[in-house]
Amino acid sequence: MRLVQFCHRGGEGGVRVGVEQAGGQGVIDLKAFDPSMPSTMREFLEMGEKGMDCAKRALSSGQHVVVQMDVRLLSPVTGPEKVVCVGMNYKDHCLEQNAPIPKEPIIFSKFPSTITGPYDDIILPAESQEVDWEVELAFVIGRKGKHIKEEEALSYVAGFTVANDVSARDWQMKRNGKQWLLGKTFDTFCPLGPALVTTSALKDVHNLGIRCLVNGAVVQDSNTNQMIFQTEKLIAWVSQFVTLCPGDVFLTGTPPGVGVFRNPPVYLKRGDVVECQIDEIGSIRNTVV
Amino acid sequence: MRLVQFCHRGGEGGVRVGVEQAGGQGVIDLKAFDPSMPSTMREFLEMGEKGMDCAKRALSSGQHVVVQMDVRLLSPVTGPEKVVCVGMNYKDHCLEQNAPIPKEPIIFSKFPSTITGPYDDIILPAESQEVDWEVELAFVIGRKGKHIKEEEALSYVAGFTVANDVSARDWQMKRNGKQWLLGKTFDTFCPLGPALVTTSALKDVHNLGIRCLVNGAVVQDSNTNQMIFQTEKLIAWVSQFVTLCPGDVFLTGTPPGVGVFRNPPVYLKRGDVVECQIDEIGSIRNTVV
Repeated sequence: MRLVQFCHRGGEGGVRVGVEQAGGQGVIDLKAFDPSMPSTMREFLEMGEKGMDCAKRALSSGQHVVVQMDVRLLSPVTGPEKVVCVGMNYKDHCLEQNAPIPKEPIIFSKFPSTITGPYDDIILPAESQEVDWEVELAFVIGRKGKHIKEEEALSYVAGFTVANDVSARDWQMKRNGKQWLLGKTFDTFCPLGPALVTTSALKDVHNLGIRCLVNGAVVQDSNTNQMIFQTEKLIAWVSQFVTLCPGDVFLTGTPPGVGVFRNPPVYLKRGDVVECQIDEIGSIRNTVV
Repeated sequence: MRLVQFCHRGGEGGVRVGVEQAGGQGVIDLKAFDPSMPSTMREFLEMGEKGMDCAKRALSSGQHVVVQMDVRLLSPVTGPEKVVCVGMNYKDHCLEQNAPIPKEPIIFSKFPSTITGPYDDIILPAESQEVDWEVELAFVIGRKGKHIKEEEALSYVAGFTVANDVSARDWQMKRNGKQWLLGKTFDTFCPLGPALVTTSALKDVHNLGIRCLVNGAVVQDSNTNQMIFQTEKLIAWVSQFVTLCPGDVFLTGTPPGVGVFRNPPVYLKRGDVVECQIDEIGSIRNTVV
């Protein structure tokens, strides 16, 4: 299934959870199908199997369809407790910066306030001159857990989506005592979407083409098979430290081709359009303003 | 006012927002006083002045008092969008580690899942051998803002409380690519409380004795007048990057006397009792288990 958060273009009804019909035939409004369903993805995921079963029934029903034209897609998750990010997690991205391949995942975070919709604008902050792109495979936690075993880790994933881990390199790399947080956490620095694709709908999430285009030119072009630490390992690792809970978002690292390591470096400017694509999952497209 | 989150010792009724009566005479249950009031501090703060006015009326009423014996205090805020932390923010703490006094605040974060109650246990993780204490002045944001001016910053603060920024030094300083997050973010690594003391109830929050005791022995003993970047500056600084919103928690840095810089270093062990005190605000007391 392809789960989404959306609102009606007219604005009435507020945030809704929906299921996309095949072939872009609109979105089924879960709460219209079953008024006991919640309005946000985080609450929906907290319901566990019960929510997923309802979504399946809604999809089969073919009822309560909101046509594509009336749908404004939001980020598939908003207001998670955590946005967990992984640094240096593509072999080829380590090579491009002459960095050793890490022996353990390197974990940092963005504040949830960075999350923005799949087609929303990225706001270029006056405080940075070095704003860069990073296409990433993201996943969302579907149930609560601590000290999760690798073998069981995939059962904690609700689904996968596409992220842009937008990064202000000046703040990330040169200031703030080299703690990455500030450079990663300006408002709108985490476009996410377009849908949360459930694990069972993907053949092999660790073998998908992943690309970033800036103004139509391909700047990143790799495959998720280049990831050093895959989904299962990341969940096992991070859940040693923190209890994961429904809605938590993981960004799994970026392949090579970011602007900062180009010669000369290239950064985003007003008017640029950044598109992040992962095969089978989808594409997000954000204008820099 | 001293605002709290609590539940009844018996467990009935779930989380409640309350106002402490003077002299430990119990807590007034806001929702009992006015059923339109929300159950959590974050929702209460989102109401702005309306919530505060109601709390004042509830306090004057002297009605709906839950006696001290029946109150179990929780952290005054739970589930905030952000826990913003400041490193190296006491002059004397910089001196103890021979570090230069920073010219800009150094910002990092803990996940909200670290937050635990003022008298709850700190869980010593098997993954760390170097768990340390850090008493800190904390404040909580009361209204939404971005690019907040220093002169107006205090009006964005709902109140102040006491925090322990518990830190696993091995993970903070030696692993995870020197990104501090993991060492700071084990579950229960942010005891917070006992009350959110509104700004107007404090004479000068930047001139208060601040202490940490381990098993009754004073290990940190300083004054908030040693802070390099004060509340107003921190709000102005961080709100350049992110929109602050009601419930966001700031931990403003720790004075000297932490375990890692002792000779030889001292770390917390099972059975230790850590007490963090700030004059006029209160004291939290957590057992390491």
